[in-house]
Amino acid sequence: MTNQAAPDWIGLSADSGTLRGWSISGGTVKASTQIELDDTSEPDATVSSLLNALEALPTTAIIACGAWFEPALRAVPCTPLPDKLIPVHMAGRTLHILPGLRQSTPSDVTQSAPAAIAGFQALNPGWDGVICLPGDTTLWVQISAGEVVSFQTYLSGTLAELITGHPLYQTALTGSDWDKATFDRTVEDALSRPEKLAARLFAIHADHLLEETAPALGKARLKGLLIGAEMAAARPYWLGMNIALIGAQSAVAPYVRALQTQGAPATLADADRMLIAGLTAAYRLLQEPTKAQ
Amino acid sequence: MTNQAAPDWIGLSADSGTLRGWSISGGTVKASTQIELDDTSEPDATVSSLLNALEALPTTAIIACGAWFEPALRAVPCTPLPDKLIPVHMAGRTLHILPGLRQSTPSDVTQSAPAAIAGFQALNPGWDGVICLPGDTTLWVQISAGEVVSFQTYLSGTLAELITGHPLYQTALTGSDWDKATFDRTVEDALSRPEKLAARLFAIHADHLLEETAPALGKARLKGLLIGAEMAAARPYWLGMNIALIGAQSAVAPYVRALQTQGAPATLADADRMLIAGLTAAYRLLQEPTKAQ
Repeated sequence: MTNQAAPDWIGLSADSGTLRGWSISGGTVKASTQIELDDTSEPDATVSSLLNALEALPTTAIIACGAWFEPALRAVPCTPLPDKLIPVHMAGRTLHILPGLRQSTPSDVTQSAPAAIAGFQALNPGWDGVICLPGDTTLWVQISAGEVVSFQTYLSGTLAELITGHPLYQTALTGSDWDKATFDRTVEDALSRPEKLAARLFAIHADHLLEETAPALGKARLKGLLIGAEMAAARPYWLGMNIALIGAQSAVAPYVRALQTQGAPATLADADRMLIAGLTAAYRLLQEPTKAQ
Repeated sequence: MTNQAAPDWIGLSADSGTLRGWSISGGTVKASTQIELDDTSEPDATVSSLLNALEALPTTAIIACGAWFEPALRAVPCTPLPDKLIPVHMAGRTLHILPGLRQSTPSDVTQSAPAAIAGFQALNPGWDGVICLPGDTTLWVQISAGEVVSFQTYLSGTLAELITGHPLYQTALTGSDWDKATFDRTVEDALSRPEKLAARLFAIHADHLLEETAPALGKARLKGLLIGAEMAAARPYWLGMNIALIGAQSAVAPYVRALQTQGAPATLADADRMLIAGLTAAYRLLQEPTKAQ
């Protein structure tokens, strides 16, 4: 009854509360779908439902990544993809999971970035430099000779979200507009006085209360304070390096601007395209004979 | 039917979601009660209910302070108490409200601190120095010749609360214990590298996930990171100054420790005692003939 051939393979990604899936044939995405996740999401039933929606056969290969799969972790320095994926039994079948990465000094962990990093490498062979992945957290990842040498995760996006949702900022940070000139000034200020963060955050509330400052100015200051402090801390990562930015347009835009004003231009890469390229590179591992160690 | 004389006056304070009230006679608190506030709390009914519980007569004077009363604001530099309180009609009677303070450069506002500051001054006449009031926000207030010269509010306490409540830290920051040695080390680190805040916050999660670090260590790092950065920013306030700390024991204790390790001992003052002393000083204003300007 279906007018569509079964896919060659299925890619899954589960992060930030959403399980997404793509059916892929001949190297091309044929269909995609997604399911919102919450604490009550039963893993087997959720994955089954997504696989059915993508018309997976019992024999279709499944490659999966993301924190929701609680992936095994590999210690850096290492390539973003392992020689072999981790087979996990789920929803009555075998999923092949991309491991996450861990770092000891300083302590850090990423359960989902390896797919996008591997995708960027597949599309940019031989590239050395620093990949920045903004989102709920921002990862700065140092790449050399194909390996993730080190990485550092910043809580900036989550802090912005928590502050925006706090009653103190109920009317001070509405909408999505952010004033570019205010953002630039705030980044400069935060780069030179990062310790002032908690006071400058309160001043956004105070200015809105006293002067009815527009939310577009408040938003620009919130982003500028967090990204400016982060740029001060991550300076060894970006100063004088090749820089690639991977993420949603709204998350990436202020980083592009902040880096530009510091004389550090960045290459932009589409997040979904990198993710699917990474899952594709992982799928190819399944089909290769195991590499000699 | 009551075996208690009507109070001389009633003091009210409304902040952080609680309306508290005290009935006072002969300079002594005779009874106290409180009501939790939320978005549905109807102001007149809430105040009436509290006044009834404290057996206020229709003629009993009422002195009130706190953000919930949306007090008028006076510009610093000024004394924490005005020459005259602001009469406001509420619950069918006149409440005498203590104004808040505002500052233009840098923008800042405090709707509730003046009562505690005035109380501290009443109990410590002629005192010059810096008063630090930790809580949901931390205020650093510079006092000279009886006036609030300048102040600065930090969002630190609110940030700690938001982070503690985030799913990423579900098991990493439980309980109220905090390891003192870890706190001391973290304050030192944050004083010298305050720009690392967002990365060090994520590292609390990473360490808990990778090494099952105890919550008492995580709590100590959370407090140490926020207070250390704040101490770096507020250095002109505390360095070489008389320092007084006013707040709840749990909020004040890490500040005492952080200041001590920087060679800056602080005097402790009980928050409720200062608040009631401040309301008392305000009550006396009502009874004095208006000062000549």
